[in-house]
Amino acid sequence: MSEVLASLRSLMASHSPPLDALVVPSEDYHQSEYVSARDKRREFVSGFTGSAGLALITKNEALLWTDGRYFLQATEQLSDEWRLMRMGEDPVVEAWMADHLPCEASVGVDPWCVSVDTAKKWEQAFCKRKQKLIPTSTDLVDQVWNDRPPAEINPLVRHPIEFTGLSVVEKLKELRVKIQSKKARALIITALDEVAWLYNIRGTDVAYCPVVHAFAIVTFDSTFLYVDKKKLSDEANAYLQALKIEVREYSDVISDVGLLAANQLGSSFGKDPGFYNEFENGEPNKVERIWVDPASCCFALYSKLDPDLVLLQPSPISLAKSLKNPVELEGLKKAHIRDGAAVVQFLAWLDKQMQDLYGASGYFLEGEAKKNIPLGTEKLTEVSVSDKLESFRASKEHFRGLSFPTISSVGQNAAIIHYSPEPETCAELDPNKIYLCDSGAQYLDGTTDITRTVHFGKPSAHEKDCYTAVLKGHVGLGNARFPKGTNGYTLDILARVNLWDCGLDYRHGTGHGVGSYLFVHEGPQQISFRPSARNVPLQASMTVTDEPGYYEDGNFGVRLENVLVVKDAETKFNFGDKGYLEFEHITWAPYQVKLINLNKLTGEEIGWLNAYHSKCREVLAPLMNQTEMEWLMKATEPVSA
Amino acid sequence: MSEVLASLRSLMASHSPPLDALVVPSEDYHQSEYVSARDKRREFVSGFTGSAGLALITKNEALLWTDGRYFLQATEQLSDEWRLMRMGEDPVVEAWMADHLPCEASVGVDPWCVSVDTAKKWEQAFCKRKQKLIPTSTDLVDQVWNDRPPAEINPLVRHPIEFTGLSVVEKLKELRVKIQSKKARALIITALDEVAWLYNIRGTDVAYCPVVHAFAIVTFDSTFLYVDKKKLSDEANAYLQALKIEVREYSDVISDVGLLAANQLGSSFGKDPGFYNEFENGEPNKVERIWVDPASCCFALYSKLDPDLVLLQPSPISLAKSLKNPVELEGLKKAHIRDGAAVVQFLAWLDKQMQDLYGASGYFLEGEAKKNIPLGTEKLTEVSVSDKLESFRASKEHFRGLSFPTISSVGQNAAIIHYSPEPETCAELDPNKIYLCDSGAQYLDGTTDITRTVHFGKPSAHEKDCYTAVLKGHVGLGNARFPKGTNGYTLDILARVNLWDCGLDYRHGTGHGVGSYLFVHEGPQQISFRPSARNVPLQASMTVTDEPGYYEDGNFGVRLENVLVVKDAETKFNFGDKGYLEFEHITWAPYQVKLINLNKLTGEEIGWLNAYHSKCREVLAPLMNQTEMEWLMKATEPVSA
Repeated sequence: MSEVLASLRSLMASHSPPLDALVVPSEDYHQSEYVSARDKRREFVSGFTGSAGLALITKNEALLWTDGRYFLQATEQLSDEWRLMRMGEDPVVEAWMADHLPCEASVGVDPWCVSVDTAKKWEQAFCKRKQKLIPTSTDLVDQVWNDRPPAEINPLVRHPIEFTGLSVVEKLKELRVKIQSKKARALIITALDEVAWLYNIRGTDVAYCPVVHAFAIVTFDSTFLYVDKKKLSDEANAYLQALKIEVREYSDVISDVGLLAANQLGSSFGKDPGFYNEFENGEPNKVERIWVDPASCCFALYSKLDPDLVLLQPSPISLAKSLKNPVELEGLKKAHIRDGAAVVQFLAWLDKQMQDLYGASGYFLEGEAKKNIPLGTEKLTEVSVSDKLESFRASKEHFRGLSFPTISSVGQNAAIIHYSPEPETCAELDPNKIYLCDSGAQYLDGTTDITRTVHFGKPSAHEKDCYTAVLKGHVGLGNARFPKGTNGYTLDILARVNLWDCGLDYRHGTGHGVGSYLFVHEGPQQISFRPSARNVPLQASMTVTDEPGYYEDGNFGVRLENVLVVKDAETKFNFGDKGYLEFEHITWAPYQVKLINLNKLTGEEIGWLNAYHSKCREVLAPLMNQTEMEWLMKATEPVSA
Repeated sequence: MSEVLASLRSLMASHSPPLDALVVPSEDYHQSEYVSARDKRREFVSGFTGSAGLALITKNEALLWTDGRYFLQATEQLSDEWRLMRMGEDPVVEAWMADHLPCEASVGVDPWCVSVDTAKKWEQAFCKRKQKLIPTSTDLVDQVWNDRPPAEINPLVRHPIEFTGLSVVEKLKELRVKIQSKKARALIITALDEVAWLYNIRGTDVAYCPVVHAFAIVTFDSTFLYVDKKKLSDEANAYLQALKIEVREYSDVISDVGLLAANQLGSSFGKDPGFYNEFENGEPNKVERIWVDPASCCFALYSKLDPDLVLLQPSPISLAKSLKNPVELEGLKKAHIRDGAAVVQFLAWLDKQMQDLYGASGYFLEGEAKKNIPLGTEKLTEVSVSDKLESFRASKEHFRGLSFPTISSVGQNAAIIHYSPEPETCAELDPNKIYLCDSGAQYLDGTTDITRTVHFGKPSAHEKDCYTAVLKGHVGLGNARFPKGTNGYTLDILARVNLWDCGLDYRHGTGHGVGSYLFVHEGPQQISFRPSARNVPLQASMTVTDEPGYYEDGNFGVRLENVLVVKDAETKFNFGDKGYLEFEHITWAPYQVKLINLNKLTGEEIGWLNAYHSKCREVLAPLMNQTEMEWLMKATEPVSA
């Protein structure tokens, strides 16, 4: 048994009450998808590095739940002590706990690392056999994690209006109208990107995510920010002071939530009378409810509130943030052009390298690698080429880093949906195998996310069939028009039906929102078969990715991904007076024609492909040198069936 | 104010307690969609003849809720006293009652005519303002309905095994296993088609529906049928006797449900010991719950049960009935061939009539009607041609009547989704207008449902565009392959996305199950945007219609409908080992090529159309005379883009 599990089991036994099981979620205090190094508790205990998962440690067992994106990766990374639980195939964690843990079992969890929704779901499942959820007073994992990375002090910076498009004053005003409309008196803001969006601030506390570890509370007359004050420069302090945002220490949030519940939370700025004028009926203080988002608020903060006076609803900031304003849309489009240019420069560079170093027939020609080419000493690996891609991006204006770990994957690694190559173990590029690259960057004016799948040699007929089916789904979804009120659950099938036709499918959703210099995965909208994709209809000015794929374990993977913006469609008719919506692609990089069975495309699909490629030439040309432009011209030649 | 409303209001006032409002649902005691003449209470009070709707009579108002299929028809049929409430646009009935009726209002309803689900939904909405649902002890409408049609005594007949494919003994055995698996001790069967299916009996109590007004109760050891005994011939009595089905009077069901609840319901056949041997763990009587389907069980019967000992779940017969056995599938296919032949004979006949009597250019040619043709004295009307269609059907083997009132509609009447022409008021055929015909029949071996839309003159470009978009959706859905577990909510968009592309849509679901010599609308599966379409996945051997449409108020309508059978697909791959499904068309009649913009079809769509038309020739040929066959050959000529 590993030392970590032994130490944890010992702490579980000596805990009061003794714990029959300990849950170690992936999330930090803000229920984030990506967390900082010191918050990777689940990774530390299990060794599994994927972004999503949950570890459960009982007296005799250690189990890890994760979803279809990570089945292969988890199988490789988990030691024999661990059992992989496949979400969608095995029982869900609460059902497993309810059935397999003893009656009246005590199940420990750090209440800061579990959401209200999740904790309530578990407690409900526990009813049946009188099991109990025990919030531990300290995180047991932290106690056994000897070399846990220290807290970093990264600066909080103001994100200027030229990128945000909307001032904090305007955002607060709209927010308070929404709080009032729900008859609540305060909103506790727990999601990191919501705090960053509301206050127009950014940071570097979490890799790939330009946010600061912070909470916020907004009442009718006061505005609070909970953050490690050492992160604030004089300039940042002055900015927040001018906005009358009261800054408190990060750890004060728990006591302040208690004060808020008791109606005793006051700001040193005094009450801001301006807001009352917004209400005709006055007296907003008469309402008693406090609004928290049960998906992002941790159980620790919720426990400080009177459950009868809590409004558990999705945060209004989530939807407000997803509806990009014109300045944000403009920024996103510009960022995606620079990003597309970097991807094209990368592909053109890689094409030459594959020919020079590996004797590949190259991006355009379909042939076996020449065997008589003397191989150089330089090797191309998944990591080295993704570093090169990063360098192309880094040369672009407003670049601030990547938006997630690049999925640079050769051959069978491309079948690992969220593969993350490591320098020591990653694969070498191979002219006879598919190369899938899913990557994105953070620019001050927008966040990007793009996937292209390429082959520099002779793809198999099966690989072409799969690429073509994925492309048809990608185009079919992107070309859809639909009445207002349609959700992403309804649209999901458009990306799958061509794959289903040959008995193929993929085990992930089809699209997620993308932030404006914020998280690369953002809600509330999504395109997916998951029920949560029905919660919010797609609305004009939302972003959403279009990323169907196909993955063949041990063999290869294909994924194509663009970012789309939802916009009003000018349809010939307007049946039902609902108004219709459509998508606008804002990602620009060619699809590899060599991988397409052109005779399987409809005339409409061919027309779309040619128009898209023509637009790639147009928007990317100013950012290309002559060699790159020649490559791009060739990659975007018009095709016919 | 009409006499009926005045009388009802007077009864409402003298009721104890006095009623602030009276709900008059469309349903009979079995929550049927189609009801017998004497059960058309909602139609009697409101004058609206559509199949779905609900009337609400308050002291000062009379409101009628109905769905999008009937907005136009209801507008035409309702007098000024009535207000039309549009489902999907106006508040739902319970929300309207909760908000508009006084606090503590008493709302009366005949508890036999409202389902458990509906009554509970209303009671929940009434909580807010302390309103009460009052089950009336008699139906107030019946009291004021002076010329209410008398109860008919129609014979109950056995439906032989050559059509049912499964014996009552086998059906009961499977049913009892399901009852046991839910830890219930009895099932009360309230839906008319479920009683008919389970006991392999049929009748003619409800027009278009070959069922008998009856309830059934199945316990572990006894089997009951509640029916007007005057409907039973000696032969029927002997049949039921042999199956040990205890026959009681229809009206005894309420007292017997009370006895069942008290565990005192006994059968004169004694307990059947055979069934106990099925259970290894024995003692099925220990379980106390009684299973009723909350969607079809009326509130009156439910009220006799202990709410803590009721299992409220969809009846297991619903799903069992929808999964057609091989004999039923074979019968359905044969019935659809005969039915398709009748439709082709009708179209060929109508084509000649339209040319001869109206100077139309006809089914094949696109031209203005010739004005110099001397019109005969004979007129073709929506009713007279649908009578002719019925006569073609009636000449076919096993014909037993229509499966619903034929929707025979010219021009703007075709925009009324469930239009029902009346002899006195119906429109004349018109060579310059679209003609939409949605019809079906009951054959001993299967129930049919088909819609074709045709034009015998020169259709407008817009009509062709709409027909083409509807056809593309019809073909797109019919050609879909999908993994097992997929529900009809997911597939619905495939029939709409081509319409959405030009801002068009239709306000009805896309498909419903079809019975085996039973109801033309049967569940539990459906293809629809309605949430209920998510309840049950499509499964091999289910039937489902594929009927997208487009309706332009005051102008024209287009609908195309075939019946499909779900079957296992032989896909090249089987990703996820789920197994994949596809559809098989079993309806055979040509689409009108003149109405199709062939250049808007993909190669795949053209190929499908030609293959379908070729199959029409093949299966229908044996049933055509020479003239008809010549017409069919011409109507099914291969086309190219």
